[in-house]
Amino acid sequence: MASTIEPRILKGFRDFLPVKEIERKRIISLLEKNFKSFGFVPIDTPVLEYTEVLLGKGGGETDKQVYRFEDNGGRDVSMRFDLTVPFARYMAKNRSDLHLPFKRYHINKVWRGENTQRGRYREFMQCDFDIVGIDTPSADFEILMMMRDSMKALDVSNVTVHFSHRGIFNRLLGKLGIAENSVEILRIVDKLAKIGEEEVIRQLAELTSKENAMEIVEFIKPAATSLETLDKMEKAAGGADEDTERLRTIFGYISENDMEDSFKLDPSITRGLDYYTGIVYETFLDELPGIGSVCSGGRYNNLASLYTKEELPGVGASIGLDRLIAALEELGRSSDKKSFTDLLILAMDDKLFGHYHKLSSAFRDAGINCEVYHVKKKINGQFKFADAKSIPYALICGEEEYAKGLVNLKDLNNRENWNDLNLDGAIGKLKALLGK
Amino acid sequence: MASTIEPRILKGFRDFLPVKEIERKRIISLLEKNFKSFGFVPIDTPVLEYTEVLLGKGGGETDKQVYRFEDNGGRDVSMRFDLTVPFARYMAKNRSDLHLPFKRYHINKVWRGENTQRGRYREFMQCDFDIVGIDTPSADFEILMMMRDSMKALDVSNVTVHFSHRGIFNRLLGKLGIAENSVEILRIVDKLAKIGEEEVIRQLAELTSKENAMEIVEFIKPAATSLETLDKMEKAAGGADEDTERLRTIFGYISENDMEDSFKLDPSITRGLDYYTGIVYETFLDELPGIGSVCSGGRYNNLASLYTKEELPGVGASIGLDRLIAALEELGRSSDKKSFTDLLILAMDDKLFGHYHKLSSAFRDAGINCEVYHVKKKINGQFKFADAKSIPYALICGEEEYAKGLVNLKDLNNRENWNDLNLDGAIGKLKALLGK
Repeated sequence: MASTIEPRILKGFRDFLPVKEIERKRIISLLEKNFKSFGFVPIDTPVLEYTEVLLGKGGGETDKQVYRFEDNGGRDVSMRFDLTVPFARYMAKNRSDLHLPFKRYHINKVWRGENTQRGRYREFMQCDFDIVGIDTPSADFEILMMMRDSMKALDVSNVTVHFSHRGIFNRLLGKLGIAENSVEILRIVDKLAKIGEEEVIRQLAELTSKENAMEIVEFIKPAATSLETLDKMEKAAGGADEDTERLRTIFGYISENDMEDSFKLDPSITRGLDYYTGIVYETFLDELPGIGSVCSGGRYNNLASLYTKEELPGVGASIGLDRLIAALEELGRSSDKKSFTDLLILAMDDKLFGHYHKLSSAFRDAGINCEVYHVKKKINGQFKFADAKSIPYALICGEEEYAKGLVNLKDLNNRENWNDLNLDGAIGKLKALLGK
Repeated sequence: MASTIEPRILKGFRDFLPVKEIERKRIISLLEKNFKSFGFVPIDTPVLEYTEVLLGKGGGETDKQVYRFEDNGGRDVSMRFDLTVPFARYMAKNRSDLHLPFKRYHINKVWRGENTQRGRYREFMQCDFDIVGIDTPSADFEILMMMRDSMKALDVSNVTVHFSHRGIFNRLLGKLGIAENSVEILRIVDKLAKIGEEEVIRQLAELTSKENAMEIVEFIKPAATSLETLDKMEKAAGGADEDTERLRTIFGYISENDMEDSFKLDPSITRGLDYYTGIVYETFLDELPGIGSVCSGGRYNNLASLYTKEELPGVGASIGLDRLIAALEELGRSSDKKSFTDLLILAMDDKLFGHYHKLSSAFRDAGINCEVYHVKKKINGQFKFADAKSIPYALICGEEEYAKGLVNLKDLNNRENWNDLNLDGAIGKLKALLGK
């Protein structure tokens, strides 16, 4: 006989066993429910796209992480590495079928051939939500609320969304005459939590000057309250303008909604990515600050400029689902549900399988998830099956009970029994026990 | 300014606009609810696998349809082309963490570089469910019930599951002395509906002999009732054996469950694939027989032989989700829901956005999906937004209502109004209107 192939999987890729997949689906379902309640709708895009579409013309020198190949038709294709670029392409392509402002969410896998050290995966889930086609403080604020309420939906109430404004920061850099270095400066400041203030100063000084480095580090320090921080930022950047007014308006919404505890103006939040132009956000779990931001985003003034001349401003954020799932596990907020089965019908008699299936249909019709054990074997083996799936109740119906038209129920956790019930009685009893 | 890139997508791949994605998610959710009610649990596997794992050692000459490439680490990898092969690999790899019998479902995308004519896609969804680790009529029957109830869950009650038994067919071929041609014969018979009886006879005669062709065509004709068909098959194959006994047992379950109308023994069902060894199934919609089977499967006696020496018998089926979605659309059983929003808060006054968001939180907390229109503009533009999302109700609160602490509600379909409600009154009114 031929030798077998080792059933291995690629490094950075994962199988999901039922407990993990049930939990991932539970979390996704709670997030979706929240997104829908805010008026967001789901979309989907292809996993494979033309490389030119994902990476731009000739792009790709710096994109060693992308899974890129030639398909059987000779096309240069790539697997999506995020949900933002495909969304930009989607907006350009489907513009005429979409009414603005357009509010979409998209939860799905992306692929990056990253170094798999430090718990990074090459196949992982992203969860993006954006409001496109409008540039108002109300939209900026809605994303803030969505971020907070998404965590609340997962039973994580103690979160702080740190936010700032890219425009105010850029104005400071302009004042200092170092606007042309803004990309590098943003990246250095973005590493503050990781590398510390001293190293940030050293790197900024090297790039610009010691004086500029000190000005920037002074700027990114929050004051005692968010409003004092805003005053300080405004002064440093050269006075009030529409960006500082935007933040003041958003503060008004925050205080009118009594949400001061959840939101903190933090000028050290810059986000590494170039394309943000307005408000930027990061979300930290108060109980687990060490894991970093679980939900980040911001405002950009032109989503789809690669594909269309129409300007599409937007604001949105992305949840790192794998990091969030790990955090929930660490916080003890995750579920280890093994199945959805409420009732196992034990196989007591080979002649009764038709009857068992009839009973099981009746329970399912009554909203009780029910399965039949498929072979008559020792009862302990059947209990082990129930245990492996954490099934709480069993139904016993042997020849004797069948003849009387009755069944017995057993609580598999405490071994309590309810005997000689008719079908309606058993359904009623289980519904009460399960709270259904 | 640089010229833009055309936002095109690959042939055979699709964007899903919200209406289509909402509908796909609705269908998946109803199917999942049904699977869970039978005790099935979800799993997930990677999209990319080692090519050797998916295609076997050296395999691939005939697999032009597979998206196969070398990754940046020099590994020969492929995108999954079905959910069966990865499941076999999964069972072998995770065997020690899984309790048998194991009942899983998996709904996700697969990729095949097929000819895109005739409405075929290169990226499409499969939906598989299997019971692994057991070989009993009770398990065979459960899959039959799942198939029927899955369609019922989608409001398609008039389905007929046609089934037969590969073992009985093979016994006939053995009796005729043409067992070595079984793969080709199965493929010819499988095309009966497509090419007609005459052509089947011609092809079978060419492969074997005119007499054998006539015997086979006689064998695959159903009799007046399923039980008469079974008698006829049994006789043709040379008498009763465990395979015919298995079918008799399953018929017993069917009649005990009063499901004779839903299941039909049809010896022309053979399934093209080699690996089935027992019962085989195909599901037809009575109202749309022309679209072919929407759910097919069968019993195999060794799922994971490529990867492990442990024998893992199983039975299962697969729903062709794209075909099913098309069928539901044709039958008028699909939904064209555009969003989940129940209530749009109109933007009447720039100073009131903080208040609008506060109201909207209160509605969401009460279970009413609510969004704020993010910019004050002409009311007709705001109504167009509501219309594009089929939002049924609007809330109006201008300066005057705000001063009184009241709001007005409007039914956007018939323009009926309810004025001067306080928040609790508005929530109560909407809950009643929405039946929430």
